[in-house]
Amino acid sequence: MTEFARNQWYVAAYGHEVGRELLGRTILNEPVVFYRTEETGEVVALADRCVHRRYPLSAAPSRLDGDNLVCGYHGFTYGTSGTCVYVPGQKRIPRTARISSYPVVEQDSFVWVWIGAPDLADAAAIPRAPHMADPRWKTVSGMEPIDCDYGLLVDNLLDLSHETYLHGGYIGTPEVAETPISTEVDEGAGIVRVSRHMDDAACPPFYSRSTGIEGRITRWQDIEYHAPCLYLLHSRIAPVGVLPHADGTDPDAFHVEVTYAITPSTDKHVYDFWAVSRDFAQDDDEVTAFLHDNNHTVVMQDVTALNLLQQALDQESAGYQELSINIDTGGLAARRILARLAAGGGRPAPAAPAATPAATR
Amino acid sequence: MTEFARNQWYVAAYGHEVGRELLGRTILNEPVVFYRTEETGEVVALADRCVHRRYPLSAAPSRLDGDNLVCGYHGFTYGTSGTCVYVPGQKRIPRTARISSYPVVEQDSFVWVWIGAPDLADAAAIPRAPHMADPRWKTVSGMEPIDCDYGLLVDNLLDLSHETYLHGGYIGTPEVAETPISTEVDEGAGIVRVSRHMDDAACPPFYSRSTGIEGRITRWQDIEYHAPCLYLLHSRIAPVGVLPHADGTDPDAFHVEVTYAITPSTDKHVYDFWAVSRDFAQDDDEVTAFLHDNNHTVVMQDVTALNLLQQALDQESAGYQELSINIDTGGLAARRILARLAAGGGRPAPAAPAATPAATR
Amino acid sequence: MTEFARNQWYVAAYGHEVGRELLGRTILNEPVVFYRTEETGEVVALADRCVHRRYPLSAAPSRLDGDNLVCGYHGFTYGTSGTCVYVPGQKRIPRTARISSYPVVEQDSFVWVWIGAPDLADAAAIPRAPHMADPRWKTVSGMEPIDCDYGLLVDNLLDLSHETYLHGGYIGTPEVAETPISTEVDEGAGIVRVSRHMDDAACPPFYSRSTGIEGRITRWQDIEYHAPCLYLLHSRIAPVGVLPHADGTDPDAFHVEVTYAITPSTDKHVYDFWAVSRDFAQDDDEVTAFLHDNNHTVVMQDVTALNLLQQALDQESAGYQELSINIDTGGLAARRILARLAAGGGRPAPAAPAATPAATR
Repeated sequence: MTEFARNQWYVAAYGHEVGRELLGRTILNEPVVFYRTEETGEVVALADRCVHRRYPLSAAPSRLDGDNLVCGYHGFTYGTSGTCVYVPGQKRIPRTARISSYPVVEQDSFVWVWIGAPDLADAAAIPRAPHMADPRWKTVSGMEPIDCDYGLLVDNLLDLSHETYLHGGYIGTPEVAETPISTEVDEGAGIVRVSRHMDDAACPPFYSRSTGIEGRITRWQDIEYHAPCLYLLHSRIAPVGVLPHADGTDPDAFHVEVTYAITPSTDKHVYDFWAVSRDFAQDDDEVTAFLHDNNHTVVMQDVTALNLLQQALDQESAGYQELSINIDTGGLAARRILARLAAGGGRPAPAAPAATPAATR
Repeated sequence: MTEFARNQWYVAAYGHEVGRELLGRTILNEPVVFYRTEETGEVVALADRCVHRRYPLSAAPSRLDGDNLVCGYHGFTYGTSGTCVYVPGQKRIPRTARISSYPVVEQDSFVWVWIGAPDLADAAAIPRAPHMADPRWKTVSGMEPIDCDYGLLVDNLLDLSHETYLHGGYIGTPEVAETPISTEVDEGAGIVRVSRHMDDAACPPFYSRSTGIEGRITRWQDIEYHAPCLYLLHSRIAPVGVLPHADGTDPDAFHVEVTYAITPSTDKHVYDFWAVSRDFAQDDDEVTAFLHDNNHTVVMQDVTALNLLQQALDQESAGYQELSINIDTGGLAARRILARLAAGGGRPAPAAPAATPAATR
Repeated sequence: MTEFARNQWYVAAYGHEVGRELLGRTILNEPVVFYRTEETGEVVALADRCVHRRYPLSAAPSRLDGDNLVCGYHGFTYGTSGTCVYVPGQKRIPRTARISSYPVVEQDSFVWVWIGAPDLADAAAIPRAPHMADPRWKTVSGMEPIDCDYGLLVDNLLDLSHETYLHGGYIGTPEVAETPISTEVDEGAGIVRVSRHMDDAACPPFYSRSTGIEGRITRWQDIEYHAPCLYLLHSRIAPVGVLPHADGTDPDAFHVEVTYAITPSTDKHVYDFWAVSRDFAQDDDEVTAFLHDNNHTVVMQDVTALNLLQQALDQESAGYQELSINIDTGGLAARRILARLAAGGGRPAPAAPAATPAATR
């Protein structure tokens, strides 16, 4: 099992998922309930268990009373900081009647939560995905839970050679598996970069139908994994031979930012947040619907495969062997970094937040 | 997990559930099969496993042959005392071919069974619920299994402040949670009494629709829990200010006896027998149907909440904390008594069987 | 739990189940994938886990490419011997990139597989069921998985007294349970023979409707269990008093070979292969359909009972007792032999393959 790194930021939800209905999510084995305050709309994250008898505060008939959270079993009521403000049958509220509240930051359309030691929570350390909330980019997104160790999803996303096989006919073509990768690991910052530049490749339906390109393409995949949670795939598509200009602009290519947030829920359950942002045809609803549906299908192929893989691994005897090859360089680096983070190893905050990828077309 | 007290009587079924069809129930982790004899109609309780290969004797095609029980796998046949009277393929029946039979008492419409040491079974120690079989009371009843530790159901029933929240709109009003309780514990007899007398309370639909009272009420809740199994809630409803007469008669109030039998099945499975008996409108079928349906809904709210609560507790790490307050006094006393009974501590038989609550209206 | 005897042959499938679609079966806890080669139609049996990340090779989108097996996750590709012939992203194939291949023999319509040490696999040791592939016999067959220890199915088949109770109205009559058996055990060859000859018995529907016999019958049941996998029931049905001729021919009787192959899948999962072969009315489609449906019903009665029995045993405390009587002599002998085989005790190959039972009517 891949250990959890507790003192890290994780995506708990999209901002639009949190409102005046109670939302329960389990993050790093901790049940958490989310809601927004009535006046300011701030996101509140509290432990999802009543201090009295452990009833889930996100479950009906638990409910909001203004900004207070009322347990549906015996009515214990909590303020936004987790302090109990009412108990049944008596006036005095015990001093220990409080539940944990968790630091929360809304950024780039995500609700980030910090489960570890609260005094270590530094909002500046949250990696950025600015295209997610940038009007120059059109984004489709979703979330699928998978019944597997979150490490299997990290493996999956860091080795895109599987696109050729698992996602053939959608985003995979033979060139993805055939083209060697280059990998860069920034151990200090906890970032793994895996690049695969295909200069002359078939164009899979995902890109041909959304861009309108006919014929073969130049296809660049530049992965940037900010362990443990945020995964960015900078994808560049252009007709064969079309390159960025010397000044860095790239008006003749199509750019897609594929974003994943990988949030461990329990030991064998992971939230797979996925989004596809594009800098072209932003107002074309047909392209929007196509990319949403096509990527959802691709995600569900991963879900099916990883559910099955976890079941297979559960039947293995202890000490089963894997065989790693060149394509696994990025995934193995990610495992090393996750192990170090889980063991408590820190990492410096990013020197500067990443700039918004320019929507340059 | 709440330990089981083995040397105690438990309700296994309503009398009307046991007949010439085999009924299998698991009581304190022991599978038991019940049926009635043909001539006398006595209830027989035998171990629900064939001595040969452990096939369940309550499962088809096992069947009765007169008063004998025939195993559906190889035909081993048992008399009402559990002695084997037939085996296939040979005349000689091995001396050890017998299954356990359990002491059974039918009383107050219930079938009580004794799983512990048979020589300790004393029918006089069975607590009484005489209204259950008294024609002056009209009773509706049912049974719902719950996938939880039986201790969670004991907790639930001894702390009725949850009516306000979990059963709001049915039997709960704000006054239930607000009104302090008084608790009396008879450690020797293993009885916990919790009383809550509301002098001026809203009338919940359960009572307004069944009694016809309009306006606010005097509502008394007097719990009498005979650990481990029998729970009686003596409920008195009257218009505000209407009290019992000095001579003890109470002609202007409505009385409801709410009976529960809490029978541990397995470690995380409990049988929740419930009944509502009233001393008014006994012949009014509409009231009868209403009280049955309304209380069934209330029970199902408990079932849903306790199933969920058990799942939540199953995910807790060892040594999780609860916070108890005044409303929990009765429940904590019940836990203490159950722990003592489970550890083998006896209790004197009740000095005298409780008198039938007078149907005094 | 009944231990597995690894160095033995097991039926993995009927020959007709294996083709150009991948078939995954788990034998003795080992996942195996089966397919036929394109040219020769030989059956290939390989470990059903990719050497790279353990993805199941029998699961979509894994697929055949000619006679090579392509993993559906990252495209690792294996030849029929289990050697890896392609990996993504690089030319060099690691020396250790190979999966196990298992010895396979097709015989008597079955695909036999050897999970143990390959150098001990001796095809001559496979017990025979020649009627399964003999045109003089008409066979109906099927396979049902059961969620139980395979030892429970061995018990079941070696003690046919259960036909009277579990299969009454199909193949059971009172005489089966009443008639004593004789048992012969060939410990060296690992064969248990149990015979029950009923000279004057009721004819169950299974035989009356298929043979057309009216009135009482002579019914012989001669079991021949070749531990651990192959079970043959030689069944002879004739009008009362009709016996085989002195020269061994038996033209006036009806013969049915009932074949079972008992293949342990996991600790509590077994494949129950079943077949009914007859030497009469071979071309009568109505009889064929009747025998198929009737025996399928009988098998499903076993499935239901054994699923239930395993659940009952799972709830027993350790060291529960069984009571064995005369009818269990064969089953107990089988358990002894299985324990010896599991402990590694060998057994000589049969001196000579059994002759095809003559279709003598």
